[in-house]
Amino acid sequence: MADASAPRRKRLSLLGSTGSIGEQTLAVAGAAPERFEVVALGAGRNIEKLADQVRRFRPGLVSVADEKGAAELRERVGSQPFELRVGDAGLVAVAEHPADLVVSGLVGAVGLAPTLAAIRAGRDIALANKEVMVMAGALVLREVKAHGVALLPVDSEHSAIFQALCGQRIEDVARLILTASGGPFRTWSTDQIAEATIEQALKHPNWDMGPKITIDSATLMNKGLEVIEARWLFDIAPQRVDVVVHPQSIIHSLVEFVDTSVLAQLGLPDMRVPIAVALAYPERIALDLPVLDLPALGRMDFETPDHKRFPCLNLAYEALRADEAAPAVLNAANEIAVAAFLAGRIRFPEIAATNGAVLNSHVGRGGRAALRDLADVMEADAWSRACAREWIASSYGSAA
Amino acid sequence: MADASAPRRKRLSLLGSTGSIGEQTLAVAGAAPERFEVVALGAGRNIEKLADQVRRFRPGLVSVADEKGAAELRERVGSQPFELRVGDAGLVAVAEHPADLVVSGLVGAVGLAPTLAAIRAGRDIALANKEVMVMAGALVLREVKAHGVALLPVDSEHSAIFQALCGQRIEDVARLILTASGGPFRTWSTDQIAEATIEQALKHPNWDMGPKITIDSATLMNKGLEVIEARWLFDIAPQRVDVVVHPQSIIHSLVEFVDTSVLAQLGLPDMRVPIAVALAYPERIALDLPVLDLPALGRMDFETPDHKRFPCLNLAYEALRADEAAPAVLNAANEIAVAAFLAGRIRFPEIAATNGAVLNSHVGRGGRAALRDLADVMEADAWSRACAREWIASSYGSAA
Repeated sequence: MADASAPRRKRLSLLGSTGSIGEQTLAVAGAAPERFEVVALGAGRNIEKLADQVRRFRPGLVSVADEKGAAELRERVGSQPFELRVGDAGLVAVAEHPADLVVSGLVGAVGLAPTLAAIRAGRDIALANKEVMVMAGALVLREVKAHGVALLPVDSEHSAIFQALCGQRIEDVARLILTASGGPFRTWSTDQIAEATIEQALKHPNWDMGPKITIDSATLMNKGLEVIEARWLFDIAPQRVDVVVHPQSIIHSLVEFVDTSVLAQLGLPDMRVPIAVALAYPERIALDLPVLDLPALGRMDFETPDHKRFPCLNLAYEALRADEAAPAVLNAANEIAVAAFLAGRIRFPEIAATNGAVLNSHVGRGGRAALRDLADVMEADAWSRACAREWIASSYGSAA
Repeated sequence: MADASAPRRKRLSLLGSTGSIGEQTLAVAGAAPERFEVVALGAGRNIEKLADQVRRFRPGLVSVADEKGAAELRERVGSQPFELRVGDAGLVAVAEHPADLVVSGLVGAVGLAPTLAAIRAGRDIALANKEVMVMAGALVLREVKAHGVALLPVDSEHSAIFQALCGQRIEDVARLILTASGGPFRTWSTDQIAEATIEQALKHPNWDMGPKITIDSATLMNKGLEVIEARWLFDIAPQRVDVVVHPQSIIHSLVEFVDTSVLAQLGLPDMRVPIAVALAYPERIALDLPVLDLPALGRMDFETPDHKRFPCLNLAYEALRADEAAPAVLNAANEIAVAAFLAGRIRFPEIAATNGAVLNSHVGRGGRAALRDLADVMEADAWSRACAREWIASSYGSAA
């Protein structure tokens, strides 16, 4: 389909091809077959969806969760030739497969090892997996530097900063300014927030996302985790990362430079835009999506985040001040606390209280933990989960 | 003051050193003497101010309006050595002096010849003189391409677009979006605008500027002239240049890309920022100025410009559709009309009526005028001035 004079197509490998990021990545790549070639797909147990992707994109390598899934995939796809791998080793094989860009779209800690493998294999990374930088940012940053790979963020805020930094020098940056919608409780009093129900917390004003991240938006923990990501993605001191509440979520983030000039990226909320930016970088590809109409929008508002009502944001800065393992501790505690809230076992403010208590305990353990490898990350994660469960049981009388 | 290992300082020549842009340029350059060296100053009749600049910056070449000024400067500066030139040839000598960047800060048509001379001598240009691109855009663009020089805009809107385009490819641009404050009559009815006094028209909401450009902001002619500038500065089709009214003037302009992503430059209104951006490009220099505080600002608003109440904006698009000389015609007619308004000889809506009538007459002259050289530009300018005076005299019974 590409003529002889066309440039070589960009080879993409996807970790997490049947998830939300994976599907949207394939939608963007599939709409520009003259520019992208999908060479490897790593998925889990959604074999039906994966089979469709394999038929459409004809990758050379595919990975699934287990042998049962592998057999089912072979049966569904029939005679089409491709290498088939399974389990954690399969995801690492996808990560190390020859490619120009690895899209890291797995959710949670399972994405850590394959993403690190891709970096160590010298692959550029389009990073949609938040946990990679939140849990292991210090470690990942060292590996990225050691292997000289590009780390292209795929979420709206960090993609905005990445775009605003194009053609600029990081040493000319004064501040990164992440925007936050403020979540569903932006205008609620402390007393109202204390009584918030699960249904109320699950109503995000601008983005339609999964329950975990929607709760994180309500506590502002999500913005805290993004501060941690930004600190490592852009290798910038935490005190140079600020947060501004912007309820309309149209400005996705901003960069202030030393000459006081500010560059911002704006747009309607659609993940296909940051995905396309990462896939096409340093070029851009046309997307057939509605464009931002500022007069139709009418106005944009800005507020300072209220750290009293939303204490989770400051916990992120505390974790960055503590040590390299503290962000992983905070992230794990928060996963346990949010699950407990969604299960009706703790009240909304107890999410922040749990996170703060576990982080405090970690700091109280003494020493300044460095992340030498993934084992250190997973140790911090496991310790934090146990500590959070214990705190919830003892403080709120609820088995989490 | 620079140590031996420091990079060579950037050599600056200034056309219009005693004007507002010239003074602010020297303020920025003078605050970073390790990075900038002022090698040539071109001024007019403000010899006292020029003498101060010569003493402080010790340029190798200075130009003044005439021999009388030259003698006065010699007397004031005493024994300091520098080459001294006069008149139009003096400005051209400043333009052609060996330098890394020529700041084109003269006001009006007088800046045309020296700016073209600088381009033809292969100098990069920091362009603050609007008339260069408004009157002679097609000609200047051809010369810029032929000589491979960089044209760095020094006004807030075009600097914003320039900054948003850094690291981006012009072929990925969908639209340039210039922001307009809307001027003092943004919320006025047609009837109210018809009765606007000179004092009311001179009240700009956000910027403190000279009377001519302030009136142009009230008619939106200024934004029309900026559309013309943008068309030539960025070599983009006029239908890809849009205008959005943004009363707070914090977003200085925006660029929409083919993937629907929008990049914008924001900041407090201060000309030292776009000056510093142009001087330091591709780096940035720290400025000791207040920074934008979005929560303190609180909100930003956006509206569609009302072409019925402000017909001057559409005249700019008409001029760009007509021929290469039409923008010079529109610009000259507007100068005559604004002067007549400021002299109390015509009413506010008669500025737009005059501009429209003269542009119409030009189009009615037939043919598609190309700008082969400056003589063609000056012919269009002179014809338009005569035509505008005649129109004002015959239509409004007033000798302009």
